[in-house]
Amino acid sequence: MPKESDDLSTLGELGESAVLGRIFPRLPAASAQLLGPGDDAAVVAAADGRFVVTTDLMVHGPDFRLAWSLPHDLGWKAAASNLSDVAAMGAVPTALVVAIAAPADSPISLLEGIADGFRDACGALAPGCGIVGGDLSVSDTLTIAVTAFGDLAGRPPVLRSGARPGDVVAVSGALGEAAAGLRVLFAEALDANGAPDAVLASLVRDRTTAQLTPSPPIADGPLAASAGATSMVDLSDGLAIDASRVARASGVRIDFDRGALGADPDLALGGGEDHSLLATFPPGARLPGGFRPIGTVVAPADDEGNVSVILLDGKPYTVSGWDPYTGWKDSGVAGGSAG
Amino acid sequence: MPKESDDLSTLGELGESAVLGRIFPRLPAASAQLLGPGDDAAVVAAADGRFVVTTDLMVHGPDFRLAWSLPHDLGWKAAASNLSDVAAMGAVPTALVVAIAAPADSPISLLEGIADGFRDACGALAPGCGIVGGDLSVSDTLTIAVTAFGDLAGRPPVLRSGARPGDVVAVSGALGEAAAGLRVLFAEALDANGAPDAVLASLVRDRTTAQLTPSPPIADGPLAASAGATSMVDLSDGLAIDASRVARASGVRIDFDRGALGADPDLALGGGEDHSLLATFPPGARLPGGFRPIGTVVAPADDEGNVSVILLDGKPYTVSGWDPYTGWKDSGVAGGSAG
Repeated sequence: MPKESDDLSTLGELGESAVLGRIFPRLPAASAQLLGPGDDAAVVAAADGRFVVTTDLMVHGPDFRLAWSLPHDLGWKAAASNLSDVAAMGAVPTALVVAIAAPADSPISLLEGIADGFRDACGALAPGCGIVGGDLSVSDTLTIAVTAFGDLAGRPPVLRSGARPGDVVAVSGALGEAAAGLRVLFAEALDANGAPDAVLASLVRDRTTAQLTPSPPIADGPLAASAGATSMVDLSDGLAIDASRVARASGVRIDFDRGALGADPDLALGGGEDHSLLATFPPGARLPGGFRPIGTVVAPADDEGNVSVILLDGKPYTVSGWDPYTGWKDSGVAGGSAG
Repeated sequence: MPKESDDLSTLGELGESAVLGRIFPRLPAASAQLLGPGDDAAVVAAADGRFVVTTDLMVHGPDFRLAWSLPHDLGWKAAASNLSDVAAMGAVPTALVVAIAAPADSPISLLEGIADGFRDACGALAPGCGIVGGDLSVSDTLTIAVTAFGDLAGRPPVLRSGARPGDVVAVSGALGEAAAGLRVLFAEALDANGAPDAVLASLVRDRTTAQLTPSPPIADGPLAASAGATSMVDLSDGLAIDASRVARASGVRIDFDRGALGADPDLALGGGEDHSLLATFPPGARLPGGFRPIGTVVAPADDEGNVSVILLDGKPYTVSGWDPYTGWKDSGVAGGSAG
């Protein structure tokens, strides 16, 4: 864990200029940066005349709790989850811009830790990717807004809509481990009043890594594209939900092999936030990187009605899961049931 | 004003999927869009192999009040302020991504209004620019995160650091009008308890347009670049503060002509949020678009110490202004004083 400052000064005491002076030196540089922070805007290289872009908000409450996540965790996860969206297009992440709104009485160490988390996640998961710009603001609710960019290197983007019957369904990365980590936090890191507790969370740290600091296989995104992946998606809302998006966009169904989903197939299918990569490959394709087969793409049902597009060992699997507006008071562990 | 829906359904009642279904059709399309919303990421054209990028958070409380701003105003202003940062590099705005976190009990009309504001601002200020992606989340604090992109069309970006002694200092757009509008709101649109009041705000609507829905001269940014501007900046924190950034980055001083600053030079120098464009041009250059001369770039002082880099009619002008961490409880009308 990198050393954060012991300085207890608050953002409000230091002021924007001093805060920026403390944060800038910690940020990772981007190889694609042509002009970095300090002007009205940055300039980033887009060698093939296009860029991939994705944006995401992490909000205190629904997305994380400060009692459970260290500042370094927050930066790491914000980076990892956005890098994964870029990778899921088959692109190499090139740069991020990051805007943070924090309470004025936050200690400077909060922003230093977040910055270090971004630096370490970029270094570990997407070397060469860095932060080219950002914004600091004040809010009662700690909020981290990340926009991430990627380079397709001349390849077409890998869409959700390209899966074809007969394709192999494969995944790279964990299934259900982030949700299992969240279950541990809800089961073992709430105080007597039901509030998240930092000391209890520290005791279960080794079982919550996949939730707090996921390490998605970013390099496998471009590898999948080069290997001819017909569709790809980042697993943010859970395998069953995200696969159903691929199935609907492609006009197919996806049949998962229960034996390939580990000890707890319902957790693997329902758990969100792994940020693993789900891709489909033509039959017989050699799976690149860390991809392993977990199912098959099958033709759509004759009945176009309200039929499940997700199967488990050939039987319809009912998908349920996360909704940011209706579901945020839940534990985030989406449920599913074989039916 | 565009018609918002009378539907009182909340975001939480509708759920993410239905909310997206209501918002997507209202969003403006971008000419540069190669792949739009609906996949893990979007793909945007960057014809000259680079793109300009800027990001900004608008947070309820420090940046706006729902009692004073209509939803349409919020979308408009979020678009306008980011388009202006792109224009200040000399770039043509091409696309935005927008992430919004709102309380789950917000009516759908809030997001519809914000979307319409983005659409109308893009259409009015930067035709061809549109929204290519976004994110919806839940937060106790309404937060709008915008990242904007621009195309330099082969030109170098216009930086803050290029002003040279002898250059003409020129501005396009209003000076102090946004701050004057905020003064009106604080003076005439607070209720008996000092809280922002919607009915009172509606009575002063005609005097608060520059604050609530600024119309910066976006097209003048690329025009200035083509005309040989040596430096340029977006006036977000006030003329004196933003000009001092140009002066420090360029190693020069800027001498404003009091007679060119209107009836209230202190308001013109101190008021923020106009999002007008301040640029410097070589002596004798023909000023393009709406640019008008308001001062001259002069050589740095012999004494490199703590000297004001901003002059008014040749005399040092003391700069003070907005800081998001220390200043957000103030009215936002930054003060300055001739000294």
